[in-house]
Amino acid sequence: MNAKSADLLISNGTVLTCNNNDALIQNGAVAIKNDLISATGTTESFSDWTIAQKIDAEGGIIMPGLVNTHTHLPMSLFRGLADDLPLMTWLNDHIFPAEAKHITPENVSLCTMLSCAEMILSGTTTCCDGYFFEDYVAEAVYKSGMRAVLGQGVIDFPAPGVPDPSKNIKTAILFVEKWQGRYSTISPSIFCHSPYTCSEKTLKAAKEEADNHDVLFQIHLAETNGESDQMRSKYNVTPLQFLDRIGLLNNNTLLAHSVWIDNEEIAIIADHQSHISHNPESNMKLASGIAPVPNFIKAGITVGLGTDGCASNNNLDLFQEMDTAAKLHKVNLLDPTVMDAFTVLKMATLEGAKAIRLDDRIGSLEPGKQADIIIIDTNKPHLVPMYNPVSHLVYAVRGSDVRDVIVAGNILVRNYELLSINVTDILNRVSMLGKTVKFYYQKSAS
Amino acid sequence: MNAKSADLLISNGTVLTCNNNDALIQNGAVAIKNDLISATGTTESFSDWTIAQKIDAEGGIIMPGLVNTHTHLPMSLFRGLADDLPLMTWLNDHIFPAEAKHITPENVSLCTMLSCAEMILSGTTTCCDGYFFEDYVAEAVYKSGMRAVLGQGVIDFPAPGVPDPSKNIKTAILFVEKWQGRYSTISPSIFCHSPYTCSEKTLKAAKEEADNHDVLFQIHLAETNGESDQMRSKYNVTPLQFLDRIGLLNNNTLLAHSVWIDNEEIAIIADHQSHISHNPESNMKLASGIAPVPNFIKAGITVGLGTDGCASNNNLDLFQEMDTAAKLHKVNLLDPTVMDAFTVLKMATLEGAKAIRLDDRIGSLEPGKQADIIIIDTNKPHLVPMYNPVSHLVYAVRGSDVRDVIVAGNILVRNYELLSINVTDILNRVSMLGKTVKFYYQKSAS
Repeated sequence: MNAKSADLLISNGTVLTCNNNDALIQNGAVAIKNDLISATGTTESFSDWTIAQKIDAEGGIIMPGLVNTHTHLPMSLFRGLADDLPLMTWLNDHIFPAEAKHITPENVSLCTMLSCAEMILSGTTTCCDGYFFEDYVAEAVYKSGMRAVLGQGVIDFPAPGVPDPSKNIKTAILFVEKWQGRYSTISPSIFCHSPYTCSEKTLKAAKEEADNHDVLFQIHLAETNGESDQMRSKYNVTPLQFLDRIGLLNNNTLLAHSVWIDNEEIAIIADHQSHISHNPESNMKLASGIAPVPNFIKAGITVGLGTDGCASNNNLDLFQEMDTAAKLHKVNLLDPTVMDAFTVLKMATLEGAKAIRLDDRIGSLEPGKQADIIIIDTNKPHLVPMYNPVSHLVYAVRGSDVRDVIVAGNILVRNYELLSINVTDILNRVSMLGKTVKFYYQKSAS
Repeated sequence: MNAKSADLLISNGTVLTCNNNDALIQNGAVAIKNDLISATGTTESFSDWTIAQKIDAEGGIIMPGLVNTHTHLPMSLFRGLADDLPLMTWLNDHIFPAEAKHITPENVSLCTMLSCAEMILSGTTTCCDGYFFEDYVAEAVYKSGMRAVLGQGVIDFPAPGVPDPSKNIKTAILFVEKWQGRYSTISPSIFCHSPYTCSEKTLKAAKEEADNHDVLFQIHLAETNGESDQMRSKYNVTPLQFLDRIGLLNNNTLLAHSVWIDNEEIAIIADHQSHISHNPESNMKLASGIAPVPNFIKAGITVGLGTDGCASNNNLDLFQEMDTAAKLHKVNLLDPTVMDAFTVLKMATLEGAKAIRLDDRIGSLEPGKQADIIIIDTNKPHLVPMYNPVSHLVYAVRGSDVRDVIVAGNILVRNYELLSINVTDILNRVSMLGKTVKFYYQKSAS
């Protein structure tokens, strides 16, 4: 007799599969074997299974871990350093000088770990990052237990770790080759900063290398109207038209922000099956504009959700980002039916996974997919009664309601406690580092 | 020798006074005697005091409890019952029938207690409510230990507890007279639903009674463009112009929402020194529009922040509301300098207190004011490092970071535990009630 067995069974919760049928299992359970989901069903259907370890969801929500499709992890160091400033002042007078001074390998490692702690504790199990010293980002993310697509930054200026911009592509290739196939949770990528900070030559070379290595190509696109003006005056086309002209758009390209995009451009993106990362809170805080997300979705474009870096948000809580994404487009279009809760939830799970090309492995709870699972504790004043778990997830849940987190079958958070990172140590070290940053910041301001 | 003494000392935190000088005390402390703040200063300055009880803020933020200027407390029963619907469908086909069926005195008591639990745990110490069966709301709020301005609803239709609308003013007067001066934490008020659901006669009578009794007059105003159209076609003036014409505007009037207000109307509101409750998340979710808040503030109008009822938000987390308020107007005006963090923080504290006419007693940490104080635990991954506590409060803190809550000198929350309410019992009872609501809701839909 072939007994059914699992290493771990998560039971007694509402299972939101987020699969293509949007199946929801009342009093459901998910069985895990090694790093994979082996079965989903009602809790009762597992009664005759042999189970090594059990987690009782106690009536909460069992769902896929969230996917944050746009981050700059080490920037948690600059959270709240400067706010409420005009974009170019903020960047040129505050963020860039702070980066030049403090973005060292050690600080990148430390603050990446800080960001991972925040993300894991708030239910994000996968992120898609782009920054510099990405080698150190990768080491830290791997240690944290999270899953990530990590892009070494490419920009035609001296950058942290790449003082000579002529070596930016080479550095990115070395990063990709070092990390490709090394760990199942880490997927390397190439991240070009933007069409206005990279030359045509750089962009084409970076994209070619990304496609040749079969890794995701990421780029900031059309974040501000100023960028569009700049590109128009330089190339006589919009940022998106420029990328199209030089052949950068295919289904291996992730366009972050995509705020200033018109209907003609939407059709171009859809034709090329490129993906978009929507970052509503960052776009709001920096007053960049409102991306036409409902039109992206209507056109069939895959749209994931992202927080952007901590300095322009200022947290990495994807539950709050879902809430904002759902509400912002309603008020912008004066239509309460757009961006319904389920559409937004899918953006933070399966659609996000598609956007970063990991949907064959994550984004939904289905047998054969990676066991990246979170449990939401709904036994709280702001989550009772529960008529519709999807509504709660988008409009009422906070990141702090995530009770347990599992990535690739490993339990990273159990009963609110982060097991994979020494949080106290990280907090102490970052606090100390923050004092140094503040000292130099105030000195430069005086 | 006249020894200095306090019943309670909260020490070792960054004290954000939110007073008119915006004073911030590093390593500060607040001394409490009976229900009042007796002194603020550095922790060291209290070293020779005799202290009965101490709370160590452990480096967190010590600040005034938040003021939520617009709630409908019992509506927590309908949180997530219906979302993403056109406003009139949502109201007429979902919320109104559910209210008619389930808004009983017992359910009002229970769900008010649920809302109080949520608010207190997330740092709101005062709310300004308007609903029906407000007697039962008041009993529950009083028991919870929170402070509140509570308005009995007035509407020219049969309403819960007021089946005969000709008795709506009388019911409100009885409510006011019952609760006025009874408990220091409860201030009665009269809440007219709106200019389109109350006749001119009702509005004038209600306002006269509110002024005669010296209690706050609340009204929903210009929430949707449809309301403006309706008023224009009925009275040939806008909702605000109508209120002005019939003499409803003075410094004892709180206008909730005030979305569709033009510059001429802003001048009228400012001239009459009426106050506004801004409810960004509800206005976004219902796609009502974006209130011109930066212009209100420029005109010198006092603007408080509110969540509105749970059914249109769907939580009562004023920290999240601050974050949204700060970001929404930036992106709407494409100006990252508007609604800076401090302005928004003041809206949720001292300005909110002014809006509901309690600023002589609450809204800031100053000797002689009521001891309504919260402590934020900043030793968390999403709050480290801390360069600027105000930035953190608006852009990074969640309601779940509130560690301790004190109202009128009473400790309601200690180390995340709510002491004044049996939360488990409330959650169990509301969960059961939710099953009944769901049963009838699904039955009516089929």
